[in-house]
Amino acid sequence: MNMVNEQVEQWGVFELSLEGPDQGNPYRDCPLQAAFRFGGREVKTAGFYDGGGTYRIRFMPDRQGEWRFETSSPVPELDGISGSFVCTPPSAGNHGPVRVMDEYRFAHEDGTVFHPFGTTCYAWIHLNQGMQEKTLQTLADNGFNKLRMCVFPKHYAFNSEEPDSFPFARREDDGFDHTRFDPAFFAKLERRILDLQKLGIEADLILFHPYDKGHWGFDRMDAEVDDSYLSYVLARLSAFRNVWWSLANEYDFMEEKKPADWDRLFRIVQEEDPYGHPRSIHNGTRMYDHGSVRFYDHAKPWVTHLSVQHWDVTLPPIWRREYHKPIVIDECCYEGNLPQRWGNITAEEMTRRFWESIVRGAYCTHGETYTHPDNEIWWAKGGRLYGQSPERIAFLKSILEEAPAGYKPIPGIYDVPTIGVEDEYYLQYFGVHRPSYREIPLPEDAEFTAEIIDTWEMTITKLDHTLRGRSRLQLPDQLYTAVRIQRVR
Amino acid sequence: MNMVNEQVEQWGVFELSLEGPDQGNPYRDCPLQAAFRFGGREVKTAGFYDGGGTYRIRFMPDRQGEWRFETSSPVPELDGISGSFVCTPPSAGNHGPVRVMDEYRFAHEDGTVFHPFGTTCYAWIHLNQGMQEKTLQTLADNGFNKLRMCVFPKHYAFNSEEPDSFPFARREDDGFDHTRFDPAFFAKLERRILDLQKLGIEADLILFHPYDKGHWGFDRMDAEVDDSYLSYVLARLSAFRNVWWSLANEYDFMEEKKPADWDRLFRIVQEEDPYGHPRSIHNGTRMYDHGSVRFYDHAKPWVTHLSVQHWDVTLPPIWRREYHKPIVIDECCYEGNLPQRWGNITAEEMTRRFWESIVRGAYCTHGETYTHPDNEIWWAKGGRLYGQSPERIAFLKSILEEAPAGYKPIPGIYDVPTIGVEDEYYLQYFGVHRPSYREIPLPEDAEFTAEIIDTWEMTITKLDHTLRGRSRLQLPDQLYTAVRIQRVR
Repeated sequence: MNMVNEQVEQWGVFELSLEGPDQGNPYRDCPLQAAFRFGGREVKTAGFYDGGGTYRIRFMPDRQGEWRFETSSPVPELDGISGSFVCTPPSAGNHGPVRVMDEYRFAHEDGTVFHPFGTTCYAWIHLNQGMQEKTLQTLADNGFNKLRMCVFPKHYAFNSEEPDSFPFARREDDGFDHTRFDPAFFAKLERRILDLQKLGIEADLILFHPYDKGHWGFDRMDAEVDDSYLSYVLARLSAFRNVWWSLANEYDFMEEKKPADWDRLFRIVQEEDPYGHPRSIHNGTRMYDHGSVRFYDHAKPWVTHLSVQHWDVTLPPIWRREYHKPIVIDECCYEGNLPQRWGNITAEEMTRRFWESIVRGAYCTHGETYTHPDNEIWWAKGGRLYGQSPERIAFLKSILEEAPAGYKPIPGIYDVPTIGVEDEYYLQYFGVHRPSYREIPLPEDAEFTAEIIDTWEMTITKLDHTLRGRSRLQLPDQLYTAVRIQRVR
Repeated sequence: MNMVNEQVEQWGVFELSLEGPDQGNPYRDCPLQAAFRFGGREVKTAGFYDGGGTYRIRFMPDRQGEWRFETSSPVPELDGISGSFVCTPPSAGNHGPVRVMDEYRFAHEDGTVFHPFGTTCYAWIHLNQGMQEKTLQTLADNGFNKLRMCVFPKHYAFNSEEPDSFPFARREDDGFDHTRFDPAFFAKLERRILDLQKLGIEADLILFHPYDKGHWGFDRMDAEVDDSYLSYVLARLSAFRNVWWSLANEYDFMEEKKPADWDRLFRIVQEEDPYGHPRSIHNGTRMYDHGSVRFYDHAKPWVTHLSVQHWDVTLPPIWRREYHKPIVIDECCYEGNLPQRWGNITAEEMTRRFWESIVRGAYCTHGETYTHPDNEIWWAKGGRLYGQSPERIAFLKSILEEAPAGYKPIPGIYDVPTIGVEDEYYLQYFGVHRPSYREIPLPEDAEFTAEIIDTWEMTITKLDHTLRGRSRLQLPDQLYTAVRIQRVR
C-alpha cells in the first residue's frame, strides 16, 4: 500500500496505490473499491487499474478531520486494506466542487457563487504539447472559468490530426482493444484537468460526441463498451473537484444511440460519481430552424442543469418554466468567419448573446472560429484567441460578480430583460434596442445610483445625481447599452 | 334611383343610390340588399343607409360585360329596383383585389404577384387634414404598398387627440348612439382608402383594437353593437378593391372579448364581404418572453393569412408548418427611440428583420417611432418619416420583385436561409453572420452569375466571372450581406 498523501486538503485528491496482478486483463477482471468513513458516514468509491500492476483509488474528502478507509476486492492482494488520512482546510482558491444552488445558478460547495463564463476547445488535449501549453497560456490570460473539452479525439472539418494516445489501448492490427484502457492517455487528461484547476477553470468533460463518424468508431461502440469506458472514467476522474460531466456534445447527431442509451449512461454517471458533479447533455441544432432543436428531457432527475445549443438566447425563460434548472447556453454560435453558419458571428453579436443570456438569469459559453492558415482554430484546437469578445465577456463577468448573490430575473414592469433584487439592485440590458430615455419606477423611500454601461466600449458612466421614486433616465442613442441601478440608502 | 356610374371598370366600384325613409332609425330599421347577376352567376351584397334619406349599394364587378341587378328590402321604396351597367377593362395599375395565391404569397386577382411591404399609421385618418395630406405625401415618396390603419380612433401613449368624427353618431349627452353611424366619418375613411388605392397601397383596416380602454368604449361594446358595426363597415367598404380586413390589433389585449367572439366576428366578415378580401387578426406580445405570445388559431378556415406580432423573425418556418398560409409579420418592433421596448430598434435592425423574414418566405411590416417634440410619430399619426430603413426596405422590395414568381424557401443544404427556384435562382441572406467564404453546390451543366449585396449600403456587386458546379464564393467580412445567384445558361 502506498498513500500518495497522508494529509489532504478538503476537496483535494487522496490517492491510494496498490500493487496487484498484472497478468490477464486486470481492467476487466480485477474490480476494486473502497469505503471511506468519516464518523458514522460512509462513501464508497471505485478504484481502477493503472497499468504495470498498479491499482489506484482516488477520493475527494469533503469534511476536515480524520477519514478511515478499507478496500474490498475479489482479488486477495487488493482486498481488506485499511488506513486513514487527515483532511486539512482548503488552500486559497479551493472552494470545492460546483453544485446547483437554485434554479438560476451554481455555487461551489463552500457557498461561493459560481457564474460559469466558459469557452470551448473540444480537442485541445489531443494536440501536440506546444499547442496545449499555448492553450493554457491563453486561458490564463483571459477570464474564462469553464472549458468544454472532449475525452475522445475529434475528426471533423478543420481538425483531422491523429492524437498520440487514445482512451483505449491499441491492438496490433491498429484497431482498439475495448477491454483495455491506455493509462498514458488518462495521465495526460488528468494533468490537463489539474492545469485547469490551477487556473480556476472547471473542466466540462464531454464523454461522447459524434465527431468521429466511425473514423475511430468511438461514436458507435457496444453498450457494454460504453458502460465500462464510463465506469473507468468515473473511477479515475470523479475525485477532481473541477470536473463536470457532459454526457455528449450534439447527442442527437449520434444516430447509433437511442434515448434509452442516454438514460442508462446518465444513471451510470449518477451512481458511480460519489460526489455529484454537475451532469448535463448538449443538443445539436440543424440550420436556422427552431423546429430542428431536440432537447434531451432535462426534467429527468439525473440532469442537474441545461447545457443547451441554441442561437436564440431569449428563450431561457421558457426553458426555465419547463425544467426549473440552471441554464447554460453552451453553444450560441462562435465568433469567427468560417463558412458554416455556427462559426461566423461577429464579436458584437457574441457579446450581445452573453448579455442577453445573463439578463435572463442564464449563462452563455464562448467559442472562436476564425479561419487560420494552419487551421489552428480555438474552438477545436485551442492555441490563441484573435477575437474581440473575450475581453467584453470578462467585463460582463466582473459586473456580474459584483451583483448581489441572490439576484433573479425581474419580470413584468421593466419591459426589458432585467436581473436584480427588488428595491436594491437592477441590471438591465437593451441589446439592439436603443430607447432615448426610460421611466423607472423606483421606491420613494430609498435612493439609488444609476450607471450607463457601454457593453462594447466597456465603460461605466455614473450619473452625477441619485434617483428616488419614479425617475426618468436619459440614455445614449446606441446599440448594446446596459443600465445598473443600485440602492445607496 | 341614381346610378353613380353606368360604366365601371373591372374591380372598380359601381354605386347605386336610392332615396328612402329618413324618419326613425333607418340604420337599424331599413335593411337593403341587391343581387348582381352576370350570366348565370349571382352575387348578393348589402346596401347601407348614408344619412339624409339616401341609401347606397356598392358593388365591385370582377368580370367584364353586362351586369344586371335587383334590390330587395322590406322597405317598399327600396325594394325591387333593377337595372344594369357595363363592366369595362381595368385601367392601368388596377390588378384587382389581393388574394392568397399559395402558402407563401399573395397575388392580385389578375395574377400579378403582390409582395406586401407595408407600414403602419394606426390613427392617421383621425388627425387633422394637414397631417393626413402630409402622410399621403410621405407614402407617395416611399415604396410601401400596404398600410395598417384603424377604423376606430386611438387613445394611447403619444396619441390623445380627439378626432373630429367617429364611426358612431354622438348622443346629446356626449356619449355615442350605437344604433346610428356617422356618414361623415365613413366618407372621410372612404376618401382615404381611395387615396391609398391611387398610390397602389392596400388599406389593411383594423376593425377593433384595445387602445381605448373605455375612453370612448369602442373596445367594450355589446356583441350586438359589434356585429352591426361590422355589417355596416362591410356594406360600405367591401367594394373597394384595396381593402384588407384585420379583425383586431393585439386582439388578446382586448380582455372584454373571448375567443368565441372573434370566431363570430370573423364569420360575419367572411359571410358579408362578397369578394373575399384577405382576413386575419393580429396578436399582441408582452415583454421579451416567447411564452407570452398567444396566436389566434390561424388554422380556422376564415383566416386567410397570418398577421403576426413577433420580434423573432426566424420563426416563419415553424408557423408555416402549422398553418400553411402566407405569413406577414405585421409588427416586429419599430425603428425609433421611444422608451417602450417595441418602439426603439435601429434602422439596421429593422432592415435586418425584413431580410430575415423575406428569405424565409414570409413578409415583414415597417413602423417608425422616433420621439418628436409634438408627438407626431409615424406609427400612430403618420406625418413624416425620419428613419433610415424605408429606403433599404424599398431596395429589398425591388430585389424581390425581380425574383422568379414561384420562388420558395430552399431548405437543407444551403445552411443559410435562402429563397429561390432550384438550379435557377437563389437569394441568401447572412444577417449577423459573416462567413469569409462559402462553398455553393451548383449544378455542373449550367452557368450562374453571382452578386454580393450590401443590404445596408444598397449596393449590388456582380462577380466578374460566372460559376459552375461546386463553387467557392469569397464574401466580405461584414454584417448584413446577401448573395444572389442566377442562372444565365
